[in-house]
Amino acid sequence: MNQPQKNPQPWLLTPGPINTSMVVKQAMLHDWGSWDGDFRALTKAVCDQLISFVDDQDAFVCVPVQGSGTFAVEATLGTLIPRQGKALVLVNGAYGQRMTKILDYMARDYVVLDKGDYEPPRGAEVAAILEQDRGITHVLLVHCETSSGILNPVAEIAEVVEQHGRGLIIDSMSAFGAIDIHSSRVRFDAIISSANKCFEGVPGFGFALIRKTVLQHCATHAHSLSLDLYDQWQYLEKTGQWRFTPPTHVVAAFIQALKEHQQEGGVAGRFVRYRRNQQRLVAGMRQLGFKTLLADEWLSPIIVTFFAPGHTNFSFQRFYDLLKARHYIIYPGKLTQAESFRLGCIGQLFDEQIDGLLEAVSAVLDEMQIDDGNPNP
Amino acid sequence: MNQPQKNPQPWLLTPGPINTSMVVKQAMLHDWGSWDGDFRALTKAVCDQLISFVDDQDAFVCVPVQGSGTFAVEATLGTLIPRQGKALVLVNGAYGQRMTKILDYMARDYVVLDKGDYEPPRGAEVAAILEQDRGITHVLLVHCETSSGILNPVAEIAEVVEQHGRGLIIDSMSAFGAIDIHSSRVRFDAIISSANKCFEGVPGFGFALIRKTVLQHCATHAHSLSLDLYDQWQYLEKTGQWRFTPPTHVVAAFIQALKEHQQEGGVAGRFVRYRRNQQRLVAGMRQLGFKTLLADEWLSPIIVTFFAPGHTNFSFQRFYDLLKARHYIIYPGKLTQAESFRLGCIGQLFDEQIDGLLEAVSAVLDEMQIDDGNPNP
Repeated sequence: MNQPQKNPQPWLLTPGPINTSMVVKQAMLHDWGSWDGDFRALTKAVCDQLISFVDDQDAFVCVPVQGSGTFAVEATLGTLIPRQGKALVLVNGAYGQRMTKILDYMARDYVVLDKGDYEPPRGAEVAAILEQDRGITHVLLVHCETSSGILNPVAEIAEVVEQHGRGLIIDSMSAFGAIDIHSSRVRFDAIISSANKCFEGVPGFGFALIRKTVLQHCATHAHSLSLDLYDQWQYLEKTGQWRFTPPTHVVAAFIQALKEHQQEGGVAGRFVRYRRNQQRLVAGMRQLGFKTLLADEWLSPIIVTFFAPGHTNFSFQRFYDLLKARHYIIYPGKLTQAESFRLGCIGQLFDEQIDGLLEAVSAVLDEMQIDDGNPNP
Repeated sequence: MNQPQKNPQPWLLTPGPINTSMVVKQAMLHDWGSWDGDFRALTKAVCDQLISFVDDQDAFVCVPVQGSGTFAVEATLGTLIPRQGKALVLVNGAYGQRMTKILDYMARDYVVLDKGDYEPPRGAEVAAILEQDRGITHVLLVHCETSSGILNPVAEIAEVVEQHGRGLIIDSMSAFGAIDIHSSRVRFDAIISSANKCFEGVPGFGFALIRKTVLQHCATHAHSLSLDLYDQWQYLEKTGQWRFTPPTHVVAAFIQALKEHQQEGGVAGRFVRYRRNQQRLVAGMRQLGFKTLLADEWLSPIIVTFFAPGHTNFSFQRFYDLLKARHYIIYPGKLTQAESFRLGCIGQLFDEQIDGLLEAVSAVLDEMQIDDGNPNP
């Protein structure tokens, strides 16, 4: 086998793209005709299997869209929120903020509940806003906000939104596939995710699971041809095809990724491994003196924010480079107030990689002559 | 090596996705951190090398965008044409029509010169429209319109557009990389293409080469965050990164594809092979009695439209299925008036595959009991 890369595969402690299995990658060693029946069968399998992750399967359709997760979020917001609609955006990090930016581009009206860097939005405050502002048609929520790593209280918010008769759109990019959404109890109009997060595929497309009775009234909403999920849904129904060239190899890899997801025990199985990674990681980092941004109750099994050590010898770039030299790629922090960094728990990471990372962090602290990871020495 | 597909690799006689080399596909057997410096170096290499395909390299920037070619077209039109701008769209097939649909979504004003299924737009008629309508700011042209396979007269149109001081945007999706654009003589504001056409990469992103002096005035035009090429350009300049998760494996494959493109002699080398494929294909099909839609002067080395045989035994689906059983995937026609089909000449196709296809067509005609491919028996 001719391997063009000289570097060994690094371990990605990031919120995605993540490490995928070699078999997933090998599924890309084949070229598909995007118009051909064999590829249409792949597309159908992807959609059918993704639909199986919601409880009320007949009520939902799966609409894939090329591009990154943000493309899928923009496509869903553009397709579902009418030009005269109004959104309440629940913001506690970069991905909530990004939704407001998308709405700015589309010239859709919105209000924001901004909880800062990492506080969760709560049901009562959402209820108060919805009672006060009858013009709000949709509530937008990020499931796991990877800026801080917080797992937002979806069930609590969904209950309030349902009580007030508004539509809920959930950006579950980094959680779907590993955290059960319990869609029979948690009511939403749409949930959005992508290929390269908890399903452990490679990046190249996203998708939304959308309530059929909602989507069928969305024919005229979209601001973009490429991002019109109503048009894509209609075309899929009619032809079994993507409207525009799909990332064929990425889709083939995703089929294999779904198979491995099932073999691991589905959502429950993946949750167990990711939570184990997170608990092992947090325990080990705490032993090295690091502190997590969030209390345990709000920690997600997806990604964890740690405060940077307060030691004067610490620089994130050096920390990053020294860990990378040991084949571990970490992620920068995104807090506006405090210096921090993030460690992801998803992808093909197991005890061996978590332990290896912890050893590497310990060795790097020694190399940087930092006695421990305590942010307040 | 664990090969998940049971089917042997078919030969894709299509306008893309096309057959890629095994080494290109093997470049996808590695996971990249999208934020990491190693991947930023890949992105820089892609952009630098793509820029090298225009003559006046300092005058242009390369802006990549996730998704299919249509995403790149929509992104370029949305970013370059101001809200108060007006386009003249030169239409002679599906891809010209699609540009009008994109403009409808974006609510940009436009007029159309519609030449029907396969007639080329000519310089004189474009000049007449531009003289008459001073409000037109941009002319939109499809380089190779794969609906018919016609190679539109880019130089002739570009000269007229330049004389009239308007902007020219070229959708060169299926031609760029195999047909020299001669950008020192052919003036344009932007040229658009994608990874999975003549560069023989796998699908997942497109790009535009945009004149810097044009793009720097486009900060407020875009209708979409995901498709804002000005914003993407600024972010690339500042960080070396894509704004949103790139299809990392697809980008890595493209680097290898560019290497093989260069090894084959660049644009000139690829043109020679594709033209050879086309001439061998057309000669062989004509020998079997088939007729091309276009006169030789307008045939592109990208894809060729053939009339379906007039014989009552002919059905496209059966023809397709029987060829597919022999591992050749062909492409349906897109003419509104006559029954037709298309055969692509691009991708990893050589004499062996063209000859193999011709033998297969001959055998399939026998099996269908069609004496020859003549459309008027």
